[in-house]
Amino acid sequence: MNELQSPGKETRSRQALIVGGGFAGLNAALQLGNVKGVEVTLVDRHNYHLFQPLLYQVAMAGLSPADIAAPIRSLLSAYQNISVLLGEAQSVDLAGQKVQFDFGELNFDYLVLACGATHSYFGHNEWEKYAPGLKTVAHATEIRKRVLSAFEHAERITDPDEQKKYLTYVIVGGGPTGVELAGAIGEMSRFTLSRDFRRINPSHTRVILVEAGPRILPMFSEQQSNRAARDLENLGVQIWTSSVVTNINEEGVELGEERINAATVLWAAGVEASELGKSGGMPVDNRGRVIVEPDLSIQDHPNVFVAGDQSSFTHQTGNTLPGTAPVALQQGTFIGKTIREELTGKPRSKFRFHDKGQMATIGRSRAIVELGRFKISGFIAWLAWLVVHIFYLTGFKNRVLVVMQWAWSYLSFRRGARLIVDRDSSSEPPKAPEAKPEEEVPVSSEP
Amino acid sequence: MNELQSPGKETRSRQALIVGGGFAGLNAALQLGNVKGVEVTLVDRHNYHLFQPLLYQVAMAGLSPADIAAPIRSLLSAYQNISVLLGEAQSVDLAGQKVQFDFGELNFDYLVLACGATHSYFGHNEWEKYAPGLKTVAHATEIRKRVLSAFEHAERITDPDEQKKYLTYVIVGGGPTGVELAGAIGEMSRFTLSRDFRRINPSHTRVILVEAGPRILPMFSEQQSNRAARDLENLGVQIWTSSVVTNINEEGVELGEERINAATVLWAAGVEASELGKSGGMPVDNRGRVIVEPDLSIQDHPNVFVAGDQSSFTHQTGNTLPGTAPVALQQGTFIGKTIREELTGKPRSKFRFHDKGQMATIGRSRAIVELGRFKISGFIAWLAWLVVHIFYLTGFKNRVLVVMQWAWSYLSFRRGARLIVDRDSSSEPPKAPEAKPEEEVPVSSEP
Repeated sequence: MNELQSPGKETRSRQALIVGGGFAGLNAALQLGNVKGVEVTLVDRHNYHLFQPLLYQVAMAGLSPADIAAPIRSLLSAYQNISVLLGEAQSVDLAGQKVQFDFGELNFDYLVLACGATHSYFGHNEWEKYAPGLKTVAHATEIRKRVLSAFEHAERITDPDEQKKYLTYVIVGGGPTGVELAGAIGEMSRFTLSRDFRRINPSHTRVILVEAGPRILPMFSEQQSNRAARDLENLGVQIWTSSVVTNINEEGVELGEERINAATVLWAAGVEASELGKSGGMPVDNRGRVIVEPDLSIQDHPNVFVAGDQSSFTHQTGNTLPGTAPVALQQGTFIGKTIREELTGKPRSKFRFHDKGQMATIGRSRAIVELGRFKISGFIAWLAWLVVHIFYLTGFKNRVLVVMQWAWSYLSFRRGARLIVDRDSSSEPPKAPEAKPEEEVPVSSEP
Repeated sequence: MNELQSPGKETRSRQALIVGGGFAGLNAALQLGNVKGVEVTLVDRHNYHLFQPLLYQVAMAGLSPADIAAPIRSLLSAYQNISVLLGEAQSVDLAGQKVQFDFGELNFDYLVLACGATHSYFGHNEWEKYAPGLKTVAHATEIRKRVLSAFEHAERITDPDEQKKYLTYVIVGGGPTGVELAGAIGEMSRFTLSRDFRRINPSHTRVILVEAGPRILPMFSEQQSNRAARDLENLGVQIWTSSVVTNINEEGVELGEERINAATVLWAAGVEASELGKSGGMPVDNRGRVIVEPDLSIQDHPNVFVAGDQSSFTHQTGNTLPGTAPVALQQGTFIGKTIREELTGKPRSKFRFHDKGQMATIGRSRAIVELGRFKISGFIAWLAWLVVHIFYLTGFKNRVLVVMQWAWSYLSFRRGARLIVDRDSSSEPPKAPEAKPEEEVPVSSEP
């Protein structure tokens, strides 16, 4: 059955197909770069690898998309045995060892599925248009547009109730992303925008962080979670714990009997895995994640691996691993190594996650960091957060630029990327039959 | 008739309304900042001021939109008498001294119209979808997406004719923008992308610059124009002069009997002024530009000024001024100064354009510069181009970051912002009723 071990095919190169260029897929590919006997094809629906932990900075106008994204092609260009294709996987044929993409079909000897996750509205997909989540660059620019446009609209209107609605921001979900978004909006309204508006007082902004559980950041200790809550409140964020959202519409958010009028609602409450696993007939858990064996392959298909947010791996502690960047990174690296070593006849080992702790940032100068009993908070924790994120940000140039953006934001209380870009609103239909010469570049001006 | 001179109203503040936050509008506002006796409202349909001369760099993935744009609010936040509103002007009522916007009506004592221009397809608006022009950030990101997607598509297909079509780029219009786009695509395909692709050879790319006139860059001397043509040809750009486009469709471009199959066509051939002047009953020339008096006001309405690309001003030489950034900048400054001085009773002077020369850049290390008899070209001219553009780029932070981006691109042959971002393609519909915890930020990884 398993043609990988069949004799007589030793001389031809193995085809390794990686679907997804996130932390898992990219690191699997890096392990296979310039390895003899294997041809790697990495397919992603975007042409870039995204440093997702900083995506909220794009949504909050602190960074530009290009600061936290790098073309996958460039990251892998040194490896002649790796091809990168732009495309979207549609279905997996495990028996036929092939994957159907929007541009055609690709065969594989080894398959690495690392398609990630998207946000989940707990069965209320109709909430999505009122409360966008944050998973892609497109989401981030949409959130940026909504947050900034609400301030702009409030500046133009005079009705106080309407103004209040446009200055109310509700963030649903008190995990790290929700905390980051709430802290950034609180800070933006208190400091960055307060001097720029004439007709409204942006410090009248209400930022409400809604969490269904009893406290925010439940993955941290209670002490650290409380510290984060105090830091958020200092930025003007109101925290509503034990509050379950029952409806979201254009007027705002309903929480049982209560309701908050808000023009801007952001969703940071839950995610679910890509559908590709389920549709391929693979074993999935109740969150759509593919259940994997100790070596990250799937049952009966040792040549098919699933990694990152898309996989459900039961940890040595008995819990499944969370959908975080370190998990995806370590899993991708493990799979790449497994394939590489198998080509030289080595037996497989079991994946083991090395937990190096967790962090969350609150505004531009506070964070919490926790690793077992080691806990820090405040400015020192924020510096640690900064160093770790800069260190892992892919590509030298991005690192330097991001540090400079942050230094600028930090010193000036400004946000560098406060642009509202709407693709369609900006082109007027051209009509005149004649035209004037193309614009020239400026070489002069009045002093 | 003219209430500005009417006695008894001396004590109330004048309302100065500026429509458009480009070079003209912004500089008019800057002259009126913190001036007593005048309240300024600047309305723009975007929340940012755009450094348009570098927009082609955004289209060519060298810079991010935020590098060349700054929020108008921030630029004017030091001036308490200036309000900035986001909105689009719909009509001007000269007799009633008011402007209708999408959000409501504003009255004015002084009006400054500086709405700029958009591209013109010479009566063939149906070409726009096949051949986008470059006037806004949205245009630039659309062009970037098309150029990069064509390379990605060529990598995925095998049919040689189809591949050739996807690797053919036609730029219509041999002015500075057309030359900049052609040079950048030529360079990108020869150097930046050549090592990143496996299945195609990006150096097989054809970049064709089509110009209706007998030579490119007609505003420069013949000597300089020829030099630019040679520099472009060294980057692999083919120049077709005296070639008139007769049709553009999804297959490519038709030039009379000839045709070029091309998946990507860019339009840099002509622009026309905003429609606002014409619809307000103002005197316009055949390109839709409002004809202005020597003081940049319009006939019979000394309190209404039109500046920049939207205005048609007859120069001391007898020619109308071109739609360039230096003209807009100087006109805006002049108008702001005129209003400021009129408040103190000074008589008006006439606008005089100070021509400080012109430049065009070809790829990442060549340019031509011309000021009367003074002409330079090559690397020295490119350095001059660089210095001038950095100097005029608004805001310290942007300047430093842009220099760094360029230094990086120059040293590495990479392009920093090679992202294809499509707003809709990236969100999968969420479905599962359960969700997993929010993602955490990475603090660790395998070495």
